[in-house]
Amino acid sequence: MKATVIHAPGDVRLEEVPDPQVVAPTDAVVRVVASCVCGSDLWPYRGANEVNEPRRIGHEFVGIVEETGSEVRDVRPGQFVIAPFVWSCGDCLPCRSGFQTSCERGGGWGGDDREGHPVDGGQGEAVRVPQADGTLVPVDGVDDSVDERLLASLLTCSDVVATGWHAASRAGVEPGMTVAVVGDGAVGLSAVLAARELGAERIIAMSRYEARQGVAREFGATDIVEARGDEGVAAVRELTAGQGADRVLECVGTGESMVQALRSTRPGGTVGYVGVPHGVELPVELMFRRNLNVAGGVAPARAYAEMLRDKVLAGQIEPGRVFDAVMPLADVSEGYRAMDERRAIKVMLRP
Amino acid sequence: MKATVIHAPGDVRLEEVPDPQVVAPTDAVVRVVASCVCGSDLWPYRGANEVNEPRRIGHEFVGIVEETGSEVRDVRPGQFVIAPFVWSCGDCLPCRSGFQTSCERGGGWGGDDREGHPVDGGQGEAVRVPQADGTLVPVDGVDDSVDERLLASLLTCSDVVATGWHAASRAGVEPGMTVAVVGDGAVGLSAVLAARELGAERIIAMSRYEARQGVAREFGATDIVEARGDEGVAAVRELTAGQGADRVLECVGTGESMVQALRSTRPGGTVGYVGVPHGVELPVELMFRRNLNVAGGVAPARAYAEMLRDKVLAGQIEPGRVFDAVMPLADVSEGYRAMDERRAIKVMLRP
Repeated sequence: MKATVIHAPGDVRLEEVPDPQVVAPTDAVVRVVASCVCGSDLWPYRGANEVNEPRRIGHEFVGIVEETGSEVRDVRPGQFVIAPFVWSCGDCLPCRSGFQTSCERGGGWGGDDREGHPVDGGQGEAVRVPQADGTLVPVDGVDDSVDERLLASLLTCSDVVATGWHAASRAGVEPGMTVAVVGDGAVGLSAVLAARELGAERIIAMSRYEARQGVAREFGATDIVEARGDEGVAAVRELTAGQGADRVLECVGTGESMVQALRSTRPGGTVGYVGVPHGVELPVELMFRRNLNVAGGVAPARAYAEMLRDKVLAGQIEPGRVFDAVMPLADVSEGYRAMDERRAIKVMLRP
Repeated sequence: MKATVIHAPGDVRLEEVPDPQVVAPTDAVVRVVASCVCGSDLWPYRGANEVNEPRRIGHEFVGIVEETGSEVRDVRPGQFVIAPFVWSCGDCLPCRSGFQTSCERGGGWGGDDREGHPVDGGQGEAVRVPQADGTLVPVDGVDDSVDERLLASLLTCSDVVATGWHAASRAGVEPGMTVAVVGDGAVGLSAVLAARELGAERIIAMSRYEARQGVAREFGATDIVEARGDEGVAAVRELTAGQGADRVLECVGTGESMVQALRSTRPGGTVGYVGVPHGVELPVELMFRRNLNVAGGVAPARAYAEMLRDKVLAGQIEPGRVFDAVMPLADVSEGYRAMDERRAIKVMLRP
C-alpha cells in the first residue's frame, strides 16, 4: 500500500510500504477513508522537532474496518470508525478515568507498539490499529459513500474538535463566561466552538486571517482581536473591563502565545492549553500573584469522541468547517505546503 | 509603640516606631492582641529574599479596633477583628470575584499604601489598617480576654488555614479523593485539614518530623510518607495503585517540592500550590504529557476568612493546633530562630 513518510523537514513523500496485517489478537486493520494534516505535523515539517530518520506520519483518520484479531469484540469488519490520535486499551486506570493518552498499553501512530511491532501512520491507505476495542469509535449508519461534509466533521473527532473541547473543558468554561482563544488554526477554531457549546456568553477569537475569522464567527466568536503581544493583551483587557477573560484557551504551543494567554486572563482565571509546548516557560511568579490556573495537556480525544460523534450525527455541531481543502493522498506534499504557508486552515487527504 | 523591624537576614529587632494614626477616612487603627511568624517571613530571614533596608515585617494579626476613619461603616471601636494578610477594598472587580489579593486599591502589610503613607507590619503593638471595611473580619462575642486556644485558631484565619484551604479548594478536592500534601509547615498542615473538610477519603501527609506528623494525623492525615524526592514519589505512587494522588497540595514553594508534587499526581490530576515560588520552573512537558493541572497562587485569605471564622467559633475545626509556641512580642527574635531551626511549627507573639 501507499503511505506518507517524512524524510526531513520540508520533505514528505507518499511511498510504497508493507500492507498492514493483524499481528496481535487485539488488532484491527482499517482501510482509510480520509485522513488529514495536523498543525502538530508542521512541527517536524518546519524543523522544530528533529527528524533523525525517515518515519511514517499522520495521526487523524477515519475508515472502514477490514479485518479484526480474534480477541476484538466491539468493532467488526465493514464498520465505519473514527480513530483518535492515540491508541489505547480502554481498560487500565488512566483509560477508565478518561485520560487515554496516559494508557498503560497505548501509544501513538507511526511508531512501534510495546512489543516492538511497527504501527502505521494515519496518512496512508490503511492502518494496523492496536487495542482496537479500546481505540476505535464506531459510527453506525455511515459507510464509505458518506458525503464529504459529514466525513469532514467525523474526521475532526479524531483530534481537532476533541482537542479544542479539551481546552475549554479543562479550563472550566461555564455558561455566561467570557472566553478568549489564542490561536486560529483548526484547534483554536474548534476551541471557539467548544466554548460556545459549553455556554460561554462572549468569545474573543484572536486572529488576523480573514478566512479564519469567518469560521470563528460561524463557530460562535462574538469578538475578533487581530493584535498580538502587548497590544493583543490590551485589546482583550479593554473588552473585559480591564480584567482579562475568565478563561483563555491557548491553542498554539509557543512561549509567546502562552504568556499572551496568561496575561489576557483575569485574576483567578484559568488558561486551558492544548498546543504541544515548544519553548514554553511558564511565568510562575505572574501565575502566583494573579492566581492564574493552567489546565490542559495532550487531549484524550477518545474520552470526547463518542459525545462529539453524536453531536455531529445530530447536526448540532459542524466542526468539519475547519477543512478548506480536500486533496488526493497522492498530493500529500502539497497538502503540507498549503498548511505551512497558511493557504489552507486544514487539509483533508483522500486515498 | 513597639514593632518588629527586619534589618538583614537573621536580624529582626523589636524597636520603637511611631504610633499608628488614622490617615485616610477609610482607615482603622487596630491594637494587636496576637500576631505570629509566617513561613514566608523566613524567606527574607534566611536571605532567600533581599533585605535592602530595614523594614517592618509581619502580616498575620488579630486585635481590637481602637479608632476608625469617618467613612468606615462595617467595623467599630472595641470590636475584635481578624486581619487577612493583604488589605483590600472589597469593592473592585477582583475583590468582588473573591480575589482580594488582586485588589485595585489593596496592598501588603509593612509597605506603603497607594498614597505613599507607610502601613505598619503585623508583628507590633498596633497597626494602621487601610480599607478597613474591605479588610477586617469582625468576630462577635470575643474580646481581648479570649482564651489562647480560640485565639490561636482565629489568628490562623488571617493566613495559614486560609492558605491551606486555598490549595485544596483551587485544586478541586472533592469527596472520596486521595490527596497528598507536600510540606509540613503550618500551611501544609492546614491543607491536610482543608482536604479532610472537603471530603478527601485518603490524605497522605509528607513529613519527617514527629510533632508535625502528630498534628497532621489530628487534622485528618490517613498516611504519612517520610521519604522525599524520587523515593517520596515512589511511596505516594505505591499507595495509589501506581498512579499518583488525585490532588497534590504543594505548600513549600521550591522547585524541588513542585516537581515532587507534579510527579506524585495521577494523569489528569491537579496540583494546588500556595507556597511562594522560589526558583520554581514548571516542567511543562511533563504537565502536558500527563495532563497535570496547576492551580493556586497567593491565597485571598479574605475570601475564606468569614467561613473559617464561623467553623472555628462552631468548634468544627481547630486550626490553631499548628501553634506550638507562644512568646511575648519582646522575644520576636527568638521566635524567628525557633521557626528557622524547626524547633517550632508556628510561633504566636503577644504584645
